[in-house]
Amino acid sequence: MTIINIPPLDRTLEPAIQKLLDEKAKPVGSLGQLEDVAVQVGVIRGALKPALGKALSIIFAGDHGLTEEGVSSHPPEVTAAMVQNFIGGGATISAFTRLAGADLKVVDAGVKFPVTPGAGFVSARIAEGTKNAAVEPAMTRAQCDEALNKGIEIAREAAASGVDIVAPGEMGIGNTAAASLIVHRLAPAALDNVIGRGAGLDNDGLDRKRAALHKAASRTDTTDPIEVLTEFGGFEIAMMCGFMLGAAAENRVVIVDGFIAGSAALAACRIAPAARERMIFSHRSAEPGALAILDSLEADPLLDLELRLGEGSGAALAIPLVRAAAAILTDVADYPR
Amino acid sequence: MTIINIPPLDRTLEPAIQKLLDEKAKPVGSLGQLEDVAVQVGVIRGALKPALGKALSIIFAGDHGLTEEGVSSHPPEVTAAMVQNFIGGGATISAFTRLAGADLKVVDAGVKFPVTPGAGFVSARIAEGTKNAAVEPAMTRAQCDEALNKGIEIAREAAASGVDIVAPGEMGIGNTAAASLIVHRLAPAALDNVIGRGAGLDNDGLDRKRAALHKAASRTDTTDPIEVLTEFGGFEIAMMCGFMLGAAAENRVVIVDGFIAGSAALAACRIAPAARERMIFSHRSAEPGALAILDSLEADPLLDLELRLGEGSGAALAIPLVRAAAAILTDVADYPR
Repeated sequence: MTIINIPPLDRTLEPAIQKLLDEKAKPVGSLGQLEDVAVQVGVIRGALKPALGKALSIIFAGDHGLTEEGVSSHPPEVTAAMVQNFIGGGATISAFTRLAGADLKVVDAGVKFPVTPGAGFVSARIAEGTKNAAVEPAMTRAQCDEALNKGIEIAREAAASGVDIVAPGEMGIGNTAAASLIVHRLAPAALDNVIGRGAGLDNDGLDRKRAALHKAASRTDTTDPIEVLTEFGGFEIAMMCGFMLGAAAENRVVIVDGFIAGSAALAACRIAPAARERMIFSHRSAEPGALAILDSLEADPLLDLELRLGEGSGAALAIPLVRAAAAILTDVADYPR
Repeated sequence: MTIINIPPLDRTLEPAIQKLLDEKAKPVGSLGQLEDVAVQVGVIRGALKPALGKALSIIFAGDHGLTEEGVSSHPPEVTAAMVQNFIGGGATISAFTRLAGADLKVVDAGVKFPVTPGAGFVSARIAEGTKNAAVEPAMTRAQCDEALNKGIEIAREAAASGVDIVAPGEMGIGNTAAASLIVHRLAPAALDNVIGRGAGLDNDGLDRKRAALHKAASRTDTTDPIEVLTEFGGFEIAMMCGFMLGAAAENRVVIVDGFIAGSAALAACRIAPAARERMIFSHRSAEPGALAILDSLEADPLLDLELRLGEGSGAALAIPLVRAAAAILTDVADYPR
């Protein structure tokens, strides 16, 4: 992959930001966790008063050879259908981004079935879905590098266009299975503790998913983050990981969604640990593996609404909270003295 | 007070709303707590697709004779100064309502020091602050009725002007003390368990607050909600209670803020239990008495950010979440079949 240098965040401004917060017309500390977010956003953007520009919700979509093992309650055709729904504006994330005043883009990172391009669509298809990770590597190392690089490139373009907040999400039938393997290997966590029902597996499906993931995990014992992405996939997770790295390198505020976006964030932090400092965790997903990610990255998310949709929906819901936190610094008067 | 009739919510539409939700292009139940909110909002508004109109943040302000006992870290002059700050647009709630696209009104329910009127200001002053509840009733029964009635009237006017979501808040130096007494008597809860540091009391201040509140509680053993408001105050809490009753009677969505707004909500539910069905609880305040309110009303709030500012700030932060919940019904396509 592109060599990407993410230095530790320059924290020179932190004491001044904290002092400014404490002088605002409110009891010291009375905005709780939002005050921590305000300080973090100020430090990321290098500003005492971080005026946040555009927010971008961006969905990376891809299909998974793992679905051949019966690990999902939905067929891969649904990935393309939902991408079409994002483009058409009828998805949950479409509604949530409109409410949050965010732009929405949809990136085809490797969808198996055809998609008709439309507003906000970006074609970056690495292949027509990954291989079946239960029996062989999900992708080649060259494909993984390509996905990471494309994600970095998309992030740089977004930053150049004035985007200050990124809220990446994903769509990919079978991708909770890939994410479970990534989290198992990179958190690390016992595989059985990070496997869930995804979009709604029944008990038989859950048994099939466990068997397939143990089979995949037994093929390799690597804990190298890029090798883990290569072995287990998917294209959308690798590209989102690159996107998070690119956005972090540009000192943008990276809002992390739930389980699958969290697995991409975990990989990004293993590749470049200082990426973590640019991340704000939006919510505690109901998918069991999400907890391992949050624990491993010592993250305390803003929301806990038992969401398990994906699409970046939780990240989009957190955009107004991040803007509110920054507004304490930019919009609230000093305490009347 | 005005006789206000709040019937149980008509739940005829509930099964149809749940069916509509389950047909949306997302796994059933995958939006967790937001789906419960969507159903509640649909039932409150009596619509399968509840298109929510204007949201109103409205701050009720008043002063408290209890401050004579040294129960607050700030002098009562701060109430008027903060009201002026709300009018001027420089407060936290000013910033949060701008971000939420909500209107902001400020009601003088009984502020001790003068306020210069301005945009969004409503004068409804019952008296220049309450009496010292540690030694005598905070107000007369006639004053309490007047405050409740005025709150109902303001809510009816808001409903008539197209407001569908109300997010009331408060400002009043000393009002965590009054709220502790209300929650103690109406939850009910042991008084010592519902006393906190308010805006930032030190240990000596907390001792004074405890002593003053035990003195006040020992004057009367009433558990009648209107008598409790009369005995312990304040004007802003009683008026907010009336406002919540009025909004509930008009089947508006009532977003409940933290501890003090919660005490008003508790009183409203004791006066008219079906008001509860119109309430959505925005956050779990860091003030210890908030928990007793949530437990007593069996409420599971949307946010848990350790907020303890008041001003309706937590309620304002929840407005986008409530709109997002309704948007699942109004904006998301059916599942592609």
